[in-house]
Amino acid sequence: MHQSWPGGRTSESSSPHRSSRIPADQATVRRSNLSLVLRHVSERGPCSRSAVAVETGLNKTTITSLVGELQARGLLKEIGPQHAGSVGRPGLALVLDGSKVGALGLEVNVDYIAAFATDLAGRVLIDRRIGFDAMGSAPERSLAKLAQVIEKAVADLDRSGVALAGITVAVPGLIDTATGTVVVAPNLNWHGVPVVDSLLSAGVSPSVPITVDNDANLAALAEYSSGVAMGTPDLVYLTGEVGVGCGVISSGRPLRGADGFAGEVGHIMVDAIGERCGCGRTGCWETKVGLAALVRMATPDHAYGTDQQPVRDPEERLAEIEQRRAEGDPRVEAAVTEVGRWLGRGAAILANLFNPRVIVLGGFFARLADGLIPIAQAELERLGMTVIAGRCAFTASTFGFGAASRGAVDVVIERVLSDPTSIAIRND
Amino acid sequence: MHQSWPGGRTSESSSPHRSSRIPADQATVRRSNLSLVLRHVSERGPCSRSAVAVETGLNKTTITSLVGELQARGLLKEIGPQHAGSVGRPGLALVLDGSKVGALGLEVNVDYIAAFATDLAGRVLIDRRIGFDAMGSAPERSLAKLAQVIEKAVADLDRSGVALAGITVAVPGLIDTATGTVVVAPNLNWHGVPVVDSLLSAGVSPSVPITVDNDANLAALAEYSSGVAMGTPDLVYLTGEVGVGCGVISSGRPLRGADGFAGEVGHIMVDAIGERCGCGRTGCWETKVGLAALVRMATPDHAYGTDQQPVRDPEERLAEIEQRRAEGDPRVEAAVTEVGRWLGRGAAILANLFNPRVIVLGGFFARLADGLIPIAQAELERLGMTVIAGRCAFTASTFGFGAASRGAVDVVIERVLSDPTSIAIRND
Repeated sequence: MHQSWPGGRTSESSSPHRSSRIPADQATVRRSNLSLVLRHVSERGPCSRSAVAVETGLNKTTITSLVGELQARGLLKEIGPQHAGSVGRPGLALVLDGSKVGALGLEVNVDYIAAFATDLAGRVLIDRRIGFDAMGSAPERSLAKLAQVIEKAVADLDRSGVALAGITVAVPGLIDTATGTVVVAPNLNWHGVPVVDSLLSAGVSPSVPITVDNDANLAALAEYSSGVAMGTPDLVYLTGEVGVGCGVISSGRPLRGADGFAGEVGHIMVDAIGERCGCGRTGCWETKVGLAALVRMATPDHAYGTDQQPVRDPEERLAEIEQRRAEGDPRVEAAVTEVGRWLGRGAAILANLFNPRVIVLGGFFARLADGLIPIAQAELERLGMTVIAGRCAFTASTFGFGAASRGAVDVVIERVLSDPTSIAIRND
Repeated sequence: MHQSWPGGRTSESSSPHRSSRIPADQATVRRSNLSLVLRHVSERGPCSRSAVAVETGLNKTTITSLVGELQARGLLKEIGPQHAGSVGRPGLALVLDGSKVGALGLEVNVDYIAAFATDLAGRVLIDRRIGFDAMGSAPERSLAKLAQVIEKAVADLDRSGVALAGITVAVPGLIDTATGTVVVAPNLNWHGVPVVDSLLSAGVSPSVPITVDNDANLAALAEYSSGVAMGTPDLVYLTGEVGVGCGVISSGRPLRGADGFAGEVGHIMVDAIGERCGCGRTGCWETKVGLAALVRMATPDHAYGTDQQPVRDPEERLAEIEQRRAEGDPRVEAAVTEVGRWLGRGAAILANLFNPRVIVLGGFFARLADGLIPIAQAELERLGMTVIAGRCAFTASTFGFGAASRGAVDVVIERVLSDPTSIAIRND
């Protein structure tokens, strides 16, 4: 069952769902009440109509009408008799259906495209990862490949009788979510790439809503909804890749900032007298804990540069480092120690600012977690505010490289829960 | 009119107000609907019962009952006939009353105690600042003084026929909001000080809810609800005092973190080879932009230490620096430049992480804003991510030292809007 977000309740507030400076019309009220009932059943599990009426405060006539519409849209179904608790007589229970409604999440990253799909109830329908050199390809080529992956996924879902509710694409960069454009994705070398428009031009059906979001924001969401930090309302997700990504969940909500760019940790200055970064600044965190830094320290014979030189075949480099580490190469161990130390130093800043309970490590950080975490945790506790750092622990993601595409699916499902009218009434 | 927070709507979500994992009982539904109607009228301004019914989706019988209760609690009143728009006939309009309901906010800081009170509609009833050497006094003495200030304020409100809805106290430190205890307030030298319990022991009436919160968090809220950044949903508030405080509003909500400690900027490391800080760490931001740093650079003859030495009489020191600056003292100008530069460097980190539209400067930063802002802004744009820093501007608070106590009042008012049953039914 999915955690509620970003409309999830926090302990200090109970947001009215229909008040607004702009008066709501009746269609808005209807949509909002459909959402209220669907979310209620989704979070609470099987419950009778009477229970839903009492617990939502809506009257029974309204509930009957709302439930009918949610059934027609294939979102709720009835299961055998249940005891309805203290109110009303035993009757059929409502549960989330959604077996005919699918959500598709994708991730484009430096050297792969990932696809993940579930139905509305969370049953996994697709989970695949395709090796693809997006870093070395023009954006047009990468988007053509992405469109192919989407078309295959849609066809597969279609064959299973699942109608797609939406598609969300994760990209490691700053995203203009309103237009679905990547403003900049340094490690893909994308600048002003209109992802949604390109997919539509490439033949992806315009009948399905497509959104684009930052990969680490989506991964953070996946960790919160179903990962190692499931249900922890204040967490920071850090992913070690060619760059360093960060997503923040605060009080159970993704932290977005004014433009959706919050959590850009890669280029905060952590060492004023450090190396020059590919971005032109000096001492960026990425120069200390990014994959290039690890590769440079662990395998100096490869002579990866400190500046603009990209890491080619990052997956291969990482496999090589893991191999050498298993063989006891002291240079690799020293490199892991040094990355762990800087990971902790940067994390101390993040802890003081976000006060998270958990810092989830993804990407290569997760692969080297046993070496990185003890050192990073000690450094976090040395440099962070005592009362904050002492209540904050590193933990490794269990999602491997799949976290962002899982979070992308969560976004689609949340959209359905927020607006059930986005799912067409079924004719079957 | 107050901005809604933290239950305020964000563009991406419409939170159902009555769904919860714990089934709501009818009293909860009633309370929630009272809040819905009160908040609706508060935000929308005068409107008819019919309009409230249409816009909230509640039926007219329910509305009549809810409005009656809100009137009995002195929270709503009727004013002369209004045209009700497209629905219903012209009738009496409902408006927020609250003239008999007051909110009291206080701030204890290094060298003063501030008190601010308004009625529910925002009319200012008390606005005073009492010089008091809290830094040089034992916590017990400071709390006894605070209790005195509260008692006088309550008596004044009582004489005006205003019943107090609640009290919130702002303290520059880490607060356990659940128990109203200051975990640590370094510049007051408070450790584990049970503020609420102490006030109750000192005779403050237990019939009024008392809460304690961080001063900068509350000031950020005040800037959002009624200050220079009114209505800007993503902002960072930075206050230069003996320490450096920070409060963050993100998507219209105060950022709290797991323990309410988010935004602890004073001790993030910005200079690994910098001076030793009073906290024992090295290169903390506070050593670069705190009042001690300014005083040390601007008036070296006073020989303020780089470490544990506190700044005595900060207000006097600041007045002296302003005086010398007006006289054209080049050391003062150089000190302002240096503080401005480090202000921008730290702000670049905050901008990358929080993606705010505005950074509001309070405390002595506001007093020296004309000198600090151009330098800090240039440094922010040089070091921050281009697309983020380019959309983020420094601005000076206009609240002087009163921001935190204003935010404290906002907290009390928000609590009334969230739970109108916290206000007793009136007998007059």
